[in-house]
Amino acid sequence: MGLTIERDAAANLYMTMPGRDPAAKPVVIGSHLDSVPHGGNFDGAAGVVAGLVAIRALRSLEYTLPHNVTVMGIRAEESIWFQVSYIGSRSALGVLPDGSLDARRIDTGRPLSDHIAECGGDPEKLRQGQRYFDPARLRAFIELHIEQAPSLVEAGRAVGIGTGIPGNFRYPDAWIEGSNDHVGLPRRFRRDAAMAGAAFAMALDGLWEEYDRRGVPMACTLGRFHTDAKQHGLTIVPGAFHFSLDIRAYDEAVLAELDQRVDAIVAGIEQTRGVRFHLGTKARAAVGPVDPGIRAALTRGAATLGIDTIDLGSPASHDAAAFAANGVRMGLIFVRNANGSHNPFEAMEIEDFLDGTTILTEWLVNQASDEA
Amino acid sequence: MGLTIERDAAANLYMTMPGRDPAAKPVVIGSHLDSVPHGGNFDGAAGVVAGLVAIRALRSLEYTLPHNVTVMGIRAEESIWFQVSYIGSRSALGVLPDGSLDARRIDTGRPLSDHIAECGGDPEKLRQGQRYFDPARLRAFIELHIEQAPSLVEAGRAVGIGTGIPGNFRYPDAWIEGSNDHVGLPRRFRRDAAMAGAAFAMALDGLWEEYDRRGVPMACTLGRFHTDAKQHGLTIVPGAFHFSLDIRAYDEAVLAELDQRVDAIVAGIEQTRGVRFHLGTKARAAVGPVDPGIRAALTRGAATLGIDTIDLGSPASHDAAAFAANGVRMGLIFVRNANGSHNPFEAMEIEDFLDGTTILTEWLVNQASDEA
Repeated sequence: MGLTIERDAAANLYMTMPGRDPAAKPVVIGSHLDSVPHGGNFDGAAGVVAGLVAIRALRSLEYTLPHNVTVMGIRAEESIWFQVSYIGSRSALGVLPDGSLDARRIDTGRPLSDHIAECGGDPEKLRQGQRYFDPARLRAFIELHIEQAPSLVEAGRAVGIGTGIPGNFRYPDAWIEGSNDHVGLPRRFRRDAAMAGAAFAMALDGLWEEYDRRGVPMACTLGRFHTDAKQHGLTIVPGAFHFSLDIRAYDEAVLAELDQRVDAIVAGIEQTRGVRFHLGTKARAAVGPVDPGIRAALTRGAATLGIDTIDLGSPASHDAAAFAANGVRMGLIFVRNANGSHNPFEAMEIEDFLDGTTILTEWLVNQASDEA
Repeated sequence: MGLTIERDAAANLYMTMPGRDPAAKPVVIGSHLDSVPHGGNFDGAAGVVAGLVAIRALRSLEYTLPHNVTVMGIRAEESIWFQVSYIGSRSALGVLPDGSLDARRIDTGRPLSDHIAECGGDPEKLRQGQRYFDPARLRAFIELHIEQAPSLVEAGRAVGIGTGIPGNFRYPDAWIEGSNDHVGLPRRFRRDAAMAGAAFAMALDGLWEEYDRRGVPMACTLGRFHTDAKQHGLTIVPGAFHFSLDIRAYDEAVLAELDQRVDAIVAGIEQTRGVRFHLGTKARAAVGPVDPGIRAALTRGAATLGIDTIDLGSPASHDAAAFAANGVRMGLIFVRNANGSHNPFEAMEIEDFLDGTTILTEWLVNQASDEA
């Protein structure tokens, strides 16, 4: 399609359609190409393909934009292995936190820098602060992504226009220290790490229920939640219990409040159950605000095209949040998906995807140039 | 020490001191020689050594009993690997449940029969019903064991005389089926298997608290309690959660009541959290009553020796329960231990052990022959 293909030091992929003025600020369209173990086909990749489909449409109309459009295939958005969010997009922007390149893969202990080098990147250049984008020189970042909840299914719409991306705090590798004891030990003597873990989970679940009732959106996930496979057994009271925690919300003040509530829950369980929490590394990602102008433009464009949309807060993190956090105007388009994501049953109808991509293309043609 | 050494088809070890009348019903003293991963030195082995120390004392006094005394080193009392309780002792008595020899080790899938053969046993003879003991031909079975709770430490006594062994029901390999979803999925859409596991644990913990308040002894242990290591991750709502459950009590009616309560808890969680429990194989062990005559004789003997004892219900299972369940008169001697069992810190003072062994020896010399 006559695109310029480049890779950066983090092995992100850039596919650029030149505009009439190559010096004008470009629009970036992108999402991530990595997935999770046992993930599906669409979480991430759909947003990269959408950019290429939009460009293919412009090419077939022989339409040239005043500015470049870069489709970006982003690395390592999913934070399964390393204790770092948005590895690819923050590398592209030159804002990867200090120490991230030395983060160790949680199962093998191998550092992130090794993996980047193996994928054809250059961790030394990243260490020296090399970046691909100057955020001040970007017109906008648009990400199309499958919805990861069934809200659009519930609402009977194909497409949602994003209103914001939550920030989060995470404990990727926490554990509870109790005492390994015999299955017959009376309750009053036990320091059962798994029971403490269960009490922690139930307290967080209750916290979430409370916020839901108050209408304050948040989410709480204990993705890893397990006794120690090397030591556990039918007749042993668990002396160690491991977990990861991800807590997210759309408002920094809410996140700060949740952070305090989690600390209070931990202190309470330590006292009542005689265990000790080792929370380990704490990772944070800032709330990612959607640009109100882009949001309005996408909604307007969809209406012009006769596509009914709803406003949709993204409960999930997206690379778009890294761009927004660094001052880039950002917009989000969500596509209906019946079965959630991060599972092999992700289900996106191509008709719905094309509705989302048509909204994206209309915005590129008629509205993107209005962004300064 | 002039003992007759034998092994049976289950590779149990028998060390017999002949009595004046080798045809008279023997006393059996024993415990198990296996342990758990990361277990300590005393849980099981102390009871075998106690029998040998008692015999050594009789030998040094040149004292011969009217009947044989057999010290038994029992195999596979811990049910970590197979879904079967009391493998060694029930094999010796010829009452291993049907299908036990085909039970598969939970981590490797290798059948129990292979392991027995590898240890020098003969699984085919066990299949044909060969047994070492006719329970009707035994005078009594006595087991000395470290206490697995700190009740004796709390009471400031070296030795406790057992009042009974709990029966149990167990689900060695259960799991909860939920849905693997994205970390951002709103609460109302989730079918989080780990949260369901946590709710199950808290309900069981509440049940136990209730029985404690009512003064009805029981215990409840979720020894394995874990998300699936092959699929779990920081940003995935757990779709599967695995656990083992052991519930024990001293009264068959209480066990039956607890069984119903567990079923009701499972049904409630399935309904409120949209998950499905797969409880898998259910194993049971009967309550093991201590013989009132032996209990009184041991207590009387201790008093004669100037050793203060307390009565102590064993919250743990012991091979002695298998003998009791098959009509053998049974007694239990517990020795003080500060740090619980099934951990490397099991702590038994040799002075305390010798107090327990002295009570055992006194009973052999002065009281065992009274048992018919």
